Amino acid sequence: MLLGEIGEFGLIARIREIVARQRGDVVLGIDDDTAAVRVGSEVLLLTTDALIENVHFRFDYFEPAEVGWRLMAANLSDVAAMGGTPLFALVALALPKTIPVEHVEGIYAGAVDLADRFGVAIIGGDTTGSPRDGFLSLTLVARAPDGCFARRDRARPGDVLAVTGHLGGAQAGLNVLLGRGELDSASFPAVVERHKRPWPRVDEGKFLVHEMGVDCVIDVSDGLASEVGHLCRLSGTGARVEAERVPLHPETVRVAEHLSEDPLDYALHGGEDFELLFCVPAERWDALAAAWRERFETPLTRVGQIADPAEGLTLVSPDGTQALTPRGWDHFRHES
Amino acid sequence: MLLGEIGEFGLIARIREIVARQRGDVVLGIDDDTAAVRVGSEVLLLTTDALIENVHFRFDYFEPAEVGWRLMAANLSDVAAMGGTPLFALVALALPKTIPVEHVEGIYAGAVDLADRFGVAIIGGDTTGSPRDGFLSLTLVARAPDGCFARRDRARPGDVLAVTGHLGGAQAGLNVLLGRGELDSASFPAVVERHKRPWPRVDEGKFLVHEMGVDCVIDVSDGLASEVGHLCRLSGTGARVEAERVPLHPETVRVAEHLSEDPLDYALHGGEDFELLFCVPAERWDALAAAWRERFETPLTRVGQIADPAEGLTLVSPDGTQALTPRGWDHFRHES
Repeated sequence: MLLGEIGEFGLIARIREIVARQRGDVVLGIDDDTAAVRVGSEVLLLTTDALIENVHFRFDYFEPAEVGWRLMAANLSDVAAMGGTPLFALVALALPKTIPVEHVEGIYAGAVDLADRFGVAIIGGDTTGSPRDGFLSLTLVARAPDGCFARRDRARPGDVLAVTGHLGGAQAGLNVLLGRGELDSASFPAVVERHKRPWPRVDEGKFLVHEMGVDCVIDVSDGLASEVGHLCRLSGTGARVEAERVPLHPETVRVAEHLSEDPLDYALHGGEDFELLFCVPAERWDALAAAWRERFETPLTRVGQIADPAEGLTLVSPDGTQALTPRGWDHFRHES
Repeated sequence: MLLGEIGEFGLIARIREIVARQRGDVVLGIDDDTAAVRVGSEVLLLTTDALIENVHFRFDYFEPAEVGWRLMAANLSDVAAMGGTPLFALVALALPKTIPVEHVEGIYAGAVDLADRFGVAIIGGDTTGSPRDGFLSLTLVARAPDGCFARRDRARPGDVLAVTGHLGGAQAGLNVLLGRGELDSASFPAVVERHKRPWPRVDEGKFLVHEMGVDCVIDVSDGLASEVGHLCRLSGTGARVEAERVPLHPETVRVAEHLSEDPLDYALHGGEDFELLFCVPAERWDALAAAWRERFETPLTRVGQIADPAEGLTLVSPDGTQALTPRGWDHFRHES
């Protein structure tokens, strides 16, 4: 069977079987945004995320510094979804030898730029040649304050499902960057920025987990439908998402209209928004939303509710109710 | 300037400038086999190492399990050079979707096979598509027992320079695998194994650092000349290597003879032997060598001596003394 047939999540399931070991110091294995391990008196969160030229980005519409930023952001977003405090990063690069040295320096400078904002030190790495496409991977080490972190498998029927910021912007920005419909980057600065320099919700994650007691969070890297699917599969629940409540940036709506597409599709199935999706018991929602508004300017939106497993995953809109089926970014199946 | 012109070590020097930050919790940055950081009461050692298809290996002469083993071995060898106790690994893979799922499972199985022998748990990873060549990177987290580890910059003039095992075998094995001179794998099992399934000297590293008090170690991943160069550059010393003492496996000698090459060149400039090179004060050498023989069957060889910086790096042979100039594996300069 080929990778293209089994897909990313099928493959992860098989890998989980191969690597599974019973270990007292491994608190959380490969099923969450990060792993969690016990070292001495600390719980550490560890994650790794790769960025591949001609799959995730192209150098013709990304500056080197934006590639480095994007690499760091994806990993920080995973830590954000745990409520972790990021500490250290290691970078592995494989690049063709025809690349200018200034590009490599630019990649590091972009990664360091974002790292500095969250107190992360880049402490190591490996740099090697690549025959053709560039490969970048980053590993991030974070602390779980007081050994406490959020997980994906803690959703309970009745919980409010909420999301930070806007969704679909990264997909809208990509459409602009690819020049689809002759869209022009200067007219859509917010979604282009969202695609190139996403802002990981590290502070928001810490607030939710450590000040608001939220214990079920995931970052939105593969589209809302896919992430709701993960929460529900791992928690053994269903969920209802209200289509009209999904927060869309005005630029996202304009891009989609121009291309005669549905901006909701960008939010549900587009990847890499790097917002946080989380669950909170309904009776705590109002207090949480009020505390959030005191602290952050970033919007916070109730987009649905966790349901009984028998209900499955549904998308509720004025036109009726339909199944919410993930068809988010699958790195082995999509046509790059 | 292109990567091919500046080379790997020139690039690393530039990267060091970009990422350098003063941090109390970063004990050791990007100049050693691993980074060292303080987390709570522990000192952790972190390293990342990548393996690129068509640069470091090809699937036509590597089984998938051998690729996974090799990836894990390279990282374990870095930890071995610190005297660390390896704990956790994260793996990032980018593979073309035309690859059979069984190959990916094989890569993981090979990595787990070696990981299990050293008590390492694979706790996370990222799996994504690649347009063409396969890319594998692994990050390894280890403990430094009692916060104690060896470094590269502790060589002192007069120290004995010693190496574990044999050198040059990985290069000899590669020559066999590539079918150079119609050499046949079945006739050279030791060097083929050395190339495909190197055995990281984790136990030996712990013994040297924690039982023998050795504080200056490096792993031989780029050839003896290059590694002696690192030790001396970082320690501000010179060194004399005695050509006739460099330990060569009989198969390595046979391969080189068959190809009319000098087996010493394989040891000095061939990569990926993953032995340990270390320094020890001359007056402690005899006791160390005796304790080693009690504990390990692996050979231990005195190959030279650390010298005053004015002496530079020299190779002493019956024919005379010449400069020991690294021309080891440089991933941006060599023709792959």
